Amino acid sequence: MTRADSDTGLLAPGRAGSAAEAATGDTAFLQALLDAEAALPRAQAAAGLAPAEAAEAVAAAADASRFDARDLALRARTGGNPVIPLVADLTALVPEPHREYVHRGATSQDIMDTAMMLMAARTLDLILGDLDRAAGALARLAAAHRTTAMPARTLTQHAVPTTFGLKAAGWRSLVLDARDRLRTVRAALPCQLGGAAGTLAAFTAFPAPGGTVTPHGGAVRGREPAGPAHVDALLDAYAHQLGLARPVLPWHTLRTPVADLASALAFTATALGKPAADVATLSRTEIGELAEGVRGGSSAMPHKANPVRATLLAAAAHRAPALAATLCAALAAPDERPAGTWHAEWEPLRELLRLTGGAARDAVELTEGLRVHPDRMRAHLDLTHGLIVSERLSAELAPLLGRARAKQLLTEAARRAEERGRMLVDVLAELREITALGLDLVELTDPARYTGHAAHLTDRALERS
Amino acid sequence: MTRADSDTGLLAPGRAGSAAEAATGDTAFLQALLDAEAALPRAQAAAGLAPAEAAEAVAAAADASRFDARDLALRARTGGNPVIPLVADLTALVPEPHREYVHRGATSQDIMDTAMMLMAARTLDLILGDLDRAAGALARLAAAHRTTAMPARTLTQHAVPTTFGLKAAGWRSLVLDARDRLRTVRAALPCQLGGAAGTLAAFTAFPAPGGTVTPHGGAVRGREPAGPAHVDALLDAYAHQLGLARPVLPWHTLRTPVADLASALAFTATALGKPAADVATLSRTEIGELAEGVRGGSSAMPHKANPVRATLLAAAAHRAPALAATLCAALAAPDERPAGTWHAEWEPLRELLRLTGGAARDAVELTEGLRVHPDRMRAHLDLTHGLIVSERLSAELAPLLGRARAKQLLTEAARRAEERGRMLVDVLAELREITALGLDLVELTDPARYTGHAAHLTDRALERS
Amino acid sequence: MTRADSDTGLLAPGRAGSAAEAATGDTAFLQALLDAEAALPRAQAAAGLAPAEAAEAVAAAADASRFDARDLALRARTGGNPVIPLVADLTALVPEPHREYVHRGATSQDIMDTAMMLMAARTLDLILGDLDRAAGALARLAAAHRTTAMPARTLTQHAVPTTFGLKAAGWRSLVLDARDRLRTVRAALPCQLGGAAGTLAAFTAFPAPGGTVTPHGGAVRGREPAGPAHVDALLDAYAHQLGLARPVLPWHTLRTPVADLASALAFTATALGKPAADVATLSRTEIGELAEGVRGGSSAMPHKANPVRATLLAAAAHRAPALAATLCAALAAPDERPAGTWHAEWEPLRELLRLTGGAARDAVELTEGLRVHPDRMRAHLDLTHGLIVSERLSAELAPLLGRARAKQLLTEAARRAEERGRMLVDVLAELREITALGLDLVELTDPARYTGHAAHLTDRALERS
Amino acid sequence: MTRADSDTGLLAPGRAGSAAEAATGDTAFLQALLDAEAALPRAQAAAGLAPAEAAEAVAAAADASRFDARDLALRARTGGNPVIPLVADLTALVPEPHREYVHRGATSQDIMDTAMMLMAARTLDLILGDLDRAAGALARLAAAHRTTAMPARTLTQHAVPTTFGLKAAGWRSLVLDARDRLRTVRAALPCQLGGAAGTLAAFTAFPAPGGTVTPHGGAVRGREPAGPAHVDALLDAYAHQLGLARPVLPWHTLRTPVADLASALAFTATALGKPAADVATLSRTEIGELAEGVRGGSSAMPHKANPVRATLLAAAAHRAPALAATLCAALAAPDERPAGTWHAEWEPLRELLRLTGGAARDAVELTEGLRVHPDRMRAHLDLTHGLIVSERLSAELAPLLGRARAKQLLTEAARRAEERGRMLVDVLAELREITALGLDLVELTDPARYTGHAAHLTDRALERS
Repeated sequence: MTRADSDTGLLAPGRAGSAAEAATGDTAFLQALLDAEAALPRAQAAAGLAPAEAAEAVAAAADASRFDARDLALRARTGGNPVIPLVADLTALVPEPHREYVHRGATSQDIMDTAMMLMAARTLDLILGDLDRAAGALARLAAAHRTTAMPARTLTQHAVPTTFGLKAAGWRSLVLDARDRLRTVRAALPCQLGGAAGTLAAFTAFPAPGGTVTPHGGAVRGREPAGPAHVDALLDAYAHQLGLARPVLPWHTLRTPVADLASALAFTATALGKPAADVATLSRTEIGELAEGVRGGSSAMPHKANPVRATLLAAAAHRAPALAATLCAALAAPDERPAGTWHAEWEPLRELLRLTGGAARDAVELTEGLRVHPDRMRAHLDLTHGLIVSERLSAELAPLLGRARAKQLLTEAARRAEERGRMLVDVLAELREITALGLDLVELTDPARYTGHAAHLTDRALERS
Repeated sequence: MTRADSDTGLLAPGRAGSAAEAATGDTAFLQALLDAEAALPRAQAAAGLAPAEAAEAVAAAADASRFDARDLALRARTGGNPVIPLVADLTALVPEPHREYVHRGATSQDIMDTAMMLMAARTLDLILGDLDRAAGALARLAAAHRTTAMPARTLTQHAVPTTFGLKAAGWRSLVLDARDRLRTVRAALPCQLGGAAGTLAAFTAFPAPGGTVTPHGGAVRGREPAGPAHVDALLDAYAHQLGLARPVLPWHTLRTPVADLASALAFTATALGKPAADVATLSRTEIGELAEGVRGGSSAMPHKANPVRATLLAAAAHRAPALAATLCAALAAPDERPAGTWHAEWEPLRELLRLTGGAARDAVELTEGLRVHPDRMRAHLDLTHGLIVSERLSAELAPLLGRARAKQLLTEAARRAEERGRMLVDVLAELREITALGLDLVELTDPARYTGHAAHLTDRALERS
Repeated sequence: MTRADSDTGLLAPGRAGSAAEAATGDTAFLQALLDAEAALPRAQAAAGLAPAEAAEAVAAAADASRFDARDLALRARTGGNPVIPLVADLTALVPEPHREYVHRGATSQDIMDTAMMLMAARTLDLILGDLDRAAGALARLAAAHRTTAMPARTLTQHAVPTTFGLKAAGWRSLVLDARDRLRTVRAALPCQLGGAAGTLAAFTAFPAPGGTVTPHGGAVRGREPAGPAHVDALLDAYAHQLGLARPVLPWHTLRTPVADLASALAFTATALGKPAADVATLSRTEIGELAEGVRGGSSAMPHKANPVRATLLAAAAHRAPALAATLCAALAAPDERPAGTWHAEWEPLRELLRLTGGAARDAVELTEGLRVHPDRMRAHLDLTHGLIVSERLSAELAPLLGRARAKQLLTEAARRAEERGRMLVDVLAELREITALGLDLVELTDPARYTGHAAHLTDRALERS
Repeated sequence: MTRADSDTGLLAPGRAGSAAEAATGDTAFLQALLDAEAALPRAQAAAGLAPAEAAEAVAAAADASRFDARDLALRARTGGNPVIPLVADLTALVPEPHREYVHRGATSQDIMDTAMMLMAARTLDLILGDLDRAAGALARLAAAHRTTAMPARTLTQHAVPTTFGLKAAGWRSLVLDARDRLRTVRAALPCQLGGAAGTLAAFTAFPAPGGTVTPHGGAVRGREPAGPAHVDALLDAYAHQLGLARPVLPWHTLRTPVADLASALAFTATALGKPAADVATLSRTEIGELAEGVRGGSSAMPHKANPVRATLLAAAAHRAPALAATLCAALAAPDERPAGTWHAEWEPLRELLRLTGGAARDAVELTEGLRVHPDRMRAHLDLTHGLIVSERLSAELAPLLGRARAKQLLTEAARRAEERGRMLVDVLAELREITALGLDLVELTDPARYTGHAAHLTDRALERS
């Protein structure tokens, strides 16, 4: 049974049931928060700042199934974030001698940001897998249709011929661009650890366990101070524990990681909107050059074959840039933690992750199932009565007849072909001035033979791995 | 227990636990979908297009607790929206003789759009109530501080004195602006009914119950056709059933209602960010002229009094405009139902509703609990050593000494006051050229007496109801 | 000759040469600034706060041709806005006895905001005229094609028949929605007058001319104070001088007017993107149901008929929502004048005005020149072999054969029609189970006779004026 | 004299007079268009596809001073872009025997896109120079204030001490992040060359000069075909001529370069908003820890020291993300050239370039002129009566007194200090339980000695070059 106050994806067919959705749900985020908390005493233990048993006691308690996300959500209102009640509940689950090591030295933002990056890392890994699959499907389509001629359309009108292989290779290049940007971002996702205001002061303010490591300002009571080396060790260990990058500075208000992530995700979701836009267009009833593998049907209208995957991809593309803009805008924040722009990141970032994750899944389904109709493509090349190759004829005739005469002649022939519904080749074949040139008119006016360097470009594009 | 794949507000302290959240959750939306389905046969019955018993049978089955939102979410992927599986499940719950009246003549978008408007109507009613409360609290603050002098700040610097009453009156005027815009939008929220493509064809294509009303194109079999009058009656009844406005045209791709709603919601959420920005600024540690009623504290830092309500309001204001932009952009869509931009509306619209709903609640808490410190305000008026009234002195001295001399004299006095940390009045009192004028320097340099027409403006603003 | 550092519209074919462009250029804005300055002493004279001669002297100098916009732009950097150098230059042009009345009591923002509203008012008047023309053209199209049948398309696929009249009526309803919203905003555009921090203090701080009206705080020197009545008179006169609305409060940081304007403009530009999207789609080479009046051609490709107006309208629609979002976000600003969000309004607001102004012009050209091809529309209704009326057949046959049998039979007939490229009517005519029903199959399967209530809806929509 | 219809920066103090403005004006863009045209026959000559003399003739004519940008802007309306009239005018300026080589084989988009990338490259080089200067100034600030203690502020409240050096090092890290992103993008900016639809067909459709290179489809007239090798040579030469990268595929609708550019520019403009936000905050009248080098003053209010550079930077940061979102959204476009989204890129991309360019200039002025007031910073550390080090005291006392007792004792002492306006150290010194511990209370409560690892972090951050 669903809680009355929760979302289950009813408004989100693009991501419902996807792995990315599971990786970004509240339970997943709750576990990421707990993972961030658990990694902290472990890292402190590794740096000699906490006993190993305490670290293990905290880690043992840090299991999302022992917490109530909704209750935390409600209690988050007081302080403005869920870490404050989470730490209380986590502390209560840890046996007494170890409780003081829960969240020790940290600030809520350390945990929230680290958990966000963990959630992002886990989701990006899923997305990257799907992009690889989509790129694979597109490589196969491009290779298979390397020379499949079709009309190129500019400003909605037939321009000159192209090939479907080149189109598919172009889609693939966008998918690879997205993959490259996400990979770069994935590798750089940092953990966050700075303490109350990014100076890491509290991490070394406590006496060390066993007395060997001592607090900052040890002069006070004669102990050895824990210094920069301990802090460096702590940061290294924390990053290592979590499988995240180690930042040079705490980034509480240096939000490059969030901006980069947002930008790469928006790029991905929007770039996947390009094949979607082409599929939606080319599967129009009047065009029918492409069709999705699974027809989204209608019982009352059996002829409908809605491009549902393309539709959901278009919806994701429509939404992603604004979400990224919200996140980018959060860069310009004052102080060591801003009053609002940080809080404004949480939902848009999660939304962008799962929107893109859902889109990547739909891209796999779209590309792996796509049906191509070369016959329709070929037939459409004749829709303009052969005028689709007029560019070629201009180029060919100009040096033979002079540019002005060639243009005059072609314009007249084009007009006649269009008006009478005849093919340009037939009109030209009746003109003595043309026939006198001894050209192979059938070849010159064959759209399938005027695809330029499409095949070569396709080959070059497919070399990229 | 929370489902692993659902959201419970863990990332959304701004709206967690609010009435708006409950009104926009998946269960609430599911019920709105069912309400839209239930109202349809009822309206058809009222228009003579369906038997009353069928209408009641459908209505009886249309209870969200008998449906599984998550299951619908997953099955929505096939066709791209949850209405398709919903209709299947609803039909199965209706006893056989009446099943044919489920969703009869309608299209998925009729139900989705109507449910969205229902959800919006219910949420707006909540928001309007909260705005009224906030406006009331602000009216009390403005009246109470009608003459409470404080520094006005422009480009972060003290400019001239103002009053806190005028500031609170300004906040209230924004709240009333928001209320007015939401009220207008609320009254205009329409139901949606157009059938497959907005021609309403199928609603009269079926034979009428009891044979008195007959299908469109009755010439075919000699029955009386159901004509425009039936359709008008149907639309009137549908709107009436739902408490929504009756549109002139089906608006499947005429998205004015969504754009208007988005715009008014974004206005509201962002306008509430204005008092939030002021409260955050004026409760800075160095300023302390305002404080929230409940201090968002920190156990390790007992001096912290975080303006948490202002923070959450700022976060909502930061996010709302981009959500509205996404919705506005959906206006430019082709065809009778677009492949993507419609689907892209669902989540941003819901998000904007509950973001604004949460913000309205926080605005109530902020304004009702706000603590004002007139002593701090008064003290700050002296921070610039009396220079905060230099505008007044310029105006007063110019006609007496000539503009050039007056400026020269004041600039010199200001420099001296600032450098020596003395009050301007004392510096001026030492200048024979000034004392010779016989002015009441104490009065002229009293910031609390240079608040211009702040009190009058406050009174005028409070006349608005 | 163009200055090297200026823009002349080279990147803006959508607005180049439009009246809106001229109304929003730097010269027009400079004049608006000067109009705001000129109206101030006139209003002060009307309120007894300045001598009439001074007002006329200032007005005489306030002529944009006597100022250098580029020079002002460069000098604006020091203080962050162009009013500061403008006031210096204007003062220098006014004969000495009157100089003190230049900008007296005002703040830069009073002039900038008022000038923006003046520019907006002038541009909106142009836009409203163009929207009226476009609405007129669309009314004619809708009436002329009241019963012109064409395929309705949902999710890119033919759904059921509709009419072009209904489509045109829908476009018109959006244009009228835009007009209504702009009219409301136009009537409410306010002047701005608040002085340094919105208290209007300085307007009455100066001694009145002739001694009859005296400064605020008159107790100081025994004069009668200029009180609220003078201020109200001043505000009334200022608004009247400028033809703008009179605000209740200075709105330096109460940015409702800007947000409303942005919202209505973005609505307009994006709503005009709806007919543009339809025209672009329906003039595709494969569809050709519509064509723009003037073909955007190509010399090398004589068959091209690019929908250029639709293209430029789509571009404007694509840009407008983000500009409005930027302006809406400026609502949430602290203090009596914020350090940045105000300055961030200027260019986006101007851009939105001229983008929308250009779009309105293109909408006129598009709608007045549109060519409709009913033959293509009719031909396309047969593209699905008659299946486009399957909804009607389902409704008709269900009560005669039972829903299950009717569906089975239709699905089978549809399959056969599609596979063999035959029309559904012919397939059905061979089925004894169907012929036995004695239906008029030709009529029942005629798409042109299944346009539902499109004509009625069109009539109703055209009643709106 | 300014043209009535042009912009001169009157609304844009952020960029007026900057080098970036000059690099992005219409004249600069016109020259970039001509540079793209001039490079084409040169590249064709290099690839053996055009005679060198023709290339030089075209290049000689391609001088912006011989063209009228406004006239081109107006004539651009017919076809929707300025290249069509530009080619006509350029052709007219080239002597007859060479005219056929103007724009030969190219499409308008080849020239527009290439010119955009040229303009971007030139502007990015300017921005990168300014970022280097700003980073240099920040490095000096960070080093100079390595240990200058100041309050860290979180959610507007003092949290714990930090250093100004760490803050400046953080600003610098954002500047370097921006620089790195822009450098990467700069190096990848590609030329565009694809011909009518991206197949490069027309570039080899013409007979080669001198007969050695022959047209595609040479079988027609017995000549050797110009093949892939020629096309590769052409692309290499074109990129080389322009100093741009050589794309693998024509990117007419594969808009990665635009999206990447937009993203890096928005990052830069918004990241520069971070130091701006801090400077604006810390130069508030009540805070005064920082001040801009040049005070933006007011004649009537001599005490004003407006942070104008920070204000203009904040304005740029406020606008940039929405512009980038518009550009990112253009990725999802159908066909080989879309009807609108491409046209929608031009102005936002130019705007983003000069907005960022202006911001980079302001960042230089801000950082090079920044005045730091360590005395104010130190004084503010005492504003909370010493409670700013309560975190440290908690850590220190907990192991000595037990966590519960330590907390109780500190809370009580804090309350007393705050209420009585005494310093915490003095309150603590009166408690026997504390004095019995023999701690050095003065040291323990000295905020300047609780800056944690700020200095170490600063050093680490400054190692980055």
